[in-house]
Amino acid sequence: MIDVDKALSIIDENTKELALEKRDIVSCLNKVLAEDIYSKDNLPPFDKSAMDGYAIKSEDTRNYNTEKVVEFEIKGLIKAGDYCEEELKAGQAFKIMTGAPLPKGADAVIEIEKVEVEGNILKVSQEVTKDNNVIKLGEEIKVDELALNSGSNVRPVEIGLLASLGYSSVKVYKSPTIALIITGDELVDVDSKLEKGKIRNSNEYSLKALIKNLGAKALSLGVVADDKDTLTEKVKYALENADIVVSSGGASVGDYDFVDVVLKEIGADVKFNSVAIKPGKPVTFATYKEKLFFSLPGNPLSLITTFEEFVKPAIEKMMGKQIENKGEFSVILADDFKAKRGRKKYVYVEIKEYNGKYYAYKVGSQCSNHLMTMSEANGIIIIPEESGNVKTGEVLNGKFIFK
Amino acid sequence: MIDVDKALSIIDENTKELALEKRDIVSCLNKVLAEDIYSKDNLPPFDKSAMDGYAIKSEDTRNYNTEKVVEFEIKGLIKAGDYCEEELKAGQAFKIMTGAPLPKGADAVIEIEKVEVEGNILKVSQEVTKDNNVIKLGEEIKVDELALNSGSNVRPVEIGLLASLGYSSVKVYKSPTIALIITGDELVDVDSKLEKGKIRNSNEYSLKALIKNLGAKALSLGVVADDKDTLTEKVKYALENADIVVSSGGASVGDYDFVDVVLKEIGADVKFNSVAIKPGKPVTFATYKEKLFFSLPGNPLSLITTFEEFVKPAIEKMMGKQIENKGEFSVILADDFKAKRGRKKYVYVEIKEYNGKYYAYKVGSQCSNHLMTMSEANGIIIIPEESGNVKTGEVLNGKFIFK
Repeated sequence: MIDVDKALSIIDENTKELALEKRDIVSCLNKVLAEDIYSKDNLPPFDKSAMDGYAIKSEDTRNYNTEKVVEFEIKGLIKAGDYCEEELKAGQAFKIMTGAPLPKGADAVIEIEKVEVEGNILKVSQEVTKDNNVIKLGEEIKVDELALNSGSNVRPVEIGLLASLGYSSVKVYKSPTIALIITGDELVDVDSKLEKGKIRNSNEYSLKALIKNLGAKALSLGVVADDKDTLTEKVKYALENADIVVSSGGASVGDYDFVDVVLKEIGADVKFNSVAIKPGKPVTFATYKEKLFFSLPGNPLSLITTFEEFVKPAIEKMMGKQIENKGEFSVILADDFKAKRGRKKYVYVEIKEYNGKYYAYKVGSQCSNHLMTMSEANGIIIIPEESGNVKTGEVLNGKFIFK
Repeated sequence: MIDVDKALSIIDENTKELALEKRDIVSCLNKVLAEDIYSKDNLPPFDKSAMDGYAIKSEDTRNYNTEKVVEFEIKGLIKAGDYCEEELKAGQAFKIMTGAPLPKGADAVIEIEKVEVEGNILKVSQEVTKDNNVIKLGEEIKVDELALNSGSNVRPVEIGLLASLGYSSVKVYKSPTIALIITGDELVDVDSKLEKGKIRNSNEYSLKALIKNLGAKALSLGVVADDKDTLTEKVKYALENADIVVSSGGASVGDYDFVDVVLKEIGADVKFNSVAIKPGKPVTFATYKEKLFFSLPGNPLSLITTFEEFVKPAIEKMMGKQIENKGEFSVILADDFKAKRGRKKYVYVEIKEYNGKYYAYKVGSQCSNHLMTMSEANGIIIIPEESGNVKTGEVLNGKFIFK
C-alpha cells in the first residue's frame, strides 16, 4: 500500500500529453492551445474612432478661448466599415461613427454630445487634444506580435481573440478516449427489474458523466462477466481503442476478481495495486505501452472518489492542462468526524461560506445509500492519514467536488 | 440609465423556466431535475455482505473465550450475483463475496483476513456480532422513499444514483436556444483578409463559446447588415426560432444603430436601454411575448462583460438553476485602479490566493487589445458606482470569470 501523493506522482510520471489536432475555434472551448498565436495584422489596421463624433484636425482648436466658437465645414459621413479616400483639410470635419477609420489628415475625434451642429456647420467650444478618442493603428496589437502562448486554456475570451486575429482553427491537445469495463456478475441493466441477488449497474453511468464533465470521450464496453477469458479479450480491445482504460470492480482480494491477473498475463506493467485512501483502497494502476489502466473499486462512492483523485489528473495532463493547485482551501469543521488512522480519508460534506470562511457540515448518515449521501454534498474534507478522529473547530483542507 | 441591480431584477421578473423534457440520464449532466425521484425498490434488495468473508450465525460465536476455536462446516460459496436458496444451520458457514446476498439463517459475515481455513473447516477465534459486515435490506433506501428533489442539479453522482434506482431517463428543464444577430458593416469574416476600414467579426465566436459554456444552444444568424429592413426580418426570424435573442452592436446613439428602432416597430416591450455599468452602458433589454431580447454593445470586451452579467442569469433561470450567490468574494487590491463615479465598474484582473486571502493584480494595459487584456485575467473586481478611484490595500468584491 502506497500513500496518495506517491500514487499521484507515479501516475504523473507515466502520463504524457496526447498528440495535437487542428480544430475550429468554437470546438476548442475548454481545451488547451498547442501552438503560439501571433497576430497576422496590425490591430486596429487603421486609426479608428472610439466614439460617435466628428473627426477634425486638433490644431484647429489650439489656443481655444471661451469667447470664440470654432466652426468646421462638415464634409461628409464615415460609417464603420467605410473607408474615406478624401483628405481632411484645416477647417473641415467628417462626421464619424464608432469603429470607423479616421480620414487622412484628421488626428482627433470630438464626441457627438459635446458639439453643436447647424446645417453643414459644426461648432466646437473647447480645445480638442491630438489623438482624442482615436485608437491608433497597431495600438491593440502589432503584426507578428505574440497574442497567446501555447499552453493557454481556451475560454470564451480566447475564442473571441482568435477570431479577431483571423484564426478560424488552431492546434490544441487531443482529448483522451477512456474505455470503460464494468465487472460484477451481480449487475443488471438500469432498465431491468431487480432479480434475487442482483443490483443495478450504476458505475457505468457515473463514469460516463465524470468523463463528459472533463471534456473527454467515453468508450463503454458495458458490463463484462467476471470470467478471465472474456475479461482478457475486453481488456485487450480497450487498450487498443482507448488512451486510458478504467475498470470498476474486480480489484479486491476476492477469488473472483480477475483484473490484476489479466493485467499480469497480458504483460501490463502494474505500478501499484493498493493506495492508502478511504474510500477506495484497492486501486490498481498499470501501463501498457503508452496506454494507462486504472482498476477502481466497485463500490459506487469509492469509484467516484478514486476516479476524481487518480484518473482525472491523468486525463487533464493528456489534454495539456496545467493544474497549479488542486482547488483545496482551509475549511473549519462544524461537526465532529470519525476516522481511523492509516489511510487518508475523504469525507463528503456540505461546505458553506460565512464572512469569507468555509465551514464543513456532515451530510447523510453512514448507513444510508452512499450515492444519496454524496448527492447531498458539495465538497469534501481531507483527513490526513495519521490524524484519527477530528473535532468541531479543527481546520482541515477541503475542496468543492465536480468542479 | 438604471443601475445593475435594478436591471437584473427586471430581467429576473421577465424570465421563466422553460418547459420540461425527458432525456437519458447521461445527457442530463449539468441540467436541473424537474421531477421528484422516488426509489422503485428497497436498496439493497437483500441483506448484503460488505466484505469478502464467511457468512455465519453470530450466536455460534457467542460467549467465545480465548481457549476455544469455533469451527464451522463450509457449505459452499456465494458470489456477488448469486442467490443461495439453502438455509444456513448452526455450525455451518458459506464463503461469501462482497456484494453477495446472505443465505437465509445467516446474520453476520467475518472477514476473510480474520479466519483460518483447513479444507472444509472454517476456524473462527473471536466473537462476531450480529449484522457484522452486513448491509441490511432497505438500509440504503426504502421503496417509495424520496431520493432526489425536483430542482436538484444533475452532477455525475446524481447520474449514478438515478441509474442505481432504475431510472434510465428523467425529466429536466430544457436548455434555451439563443439566436445571435451580429451587426456592423465594418465586420468581415474570420477567414477574410482585412480590407480598408474593416475588422474581423469576433463577437459571434465569443457569444457561441459563452453559450456553449453554459450548456445552452446558439443559433447564429451571422453578420446582419446595418439596414433597417434586413434587421427587422432577422429579428422577427430570431424571435420565432429562439428563446432568447442576443444582438451585438447597433445599440449606441449613432445614426446607424437600428436595433432599438426595430424593437419598437415590431411591438417589443423595451424594458430598459441603458445600464450604469462599465464596460457596457448601452444594453437594451426587451420582451416580445415570452421571448427575451438583449441588445449588447459591439465592443468585444463590453459584449462579454454584459453577456455574463445580464444574459447568463436569464439562461440559467430558464434552465431551472437556482443561483444562490453570484460567486463573489472579498478581494484585496494589490494595485491601484482608476474609476470614474456614476457607473459600476468591472475591472479584469488576475486574482491570486495567498494563505486563504485573495489579491487582485492589474493585467494588460488600457491601450492594448481589450480581449488580450481579458485573456490575461482570471477574475474581475467590482468598483461600486459611487466609489471613484480605489487604492492598493482596499477590499472590494470580486469573482472568477467563466465559471
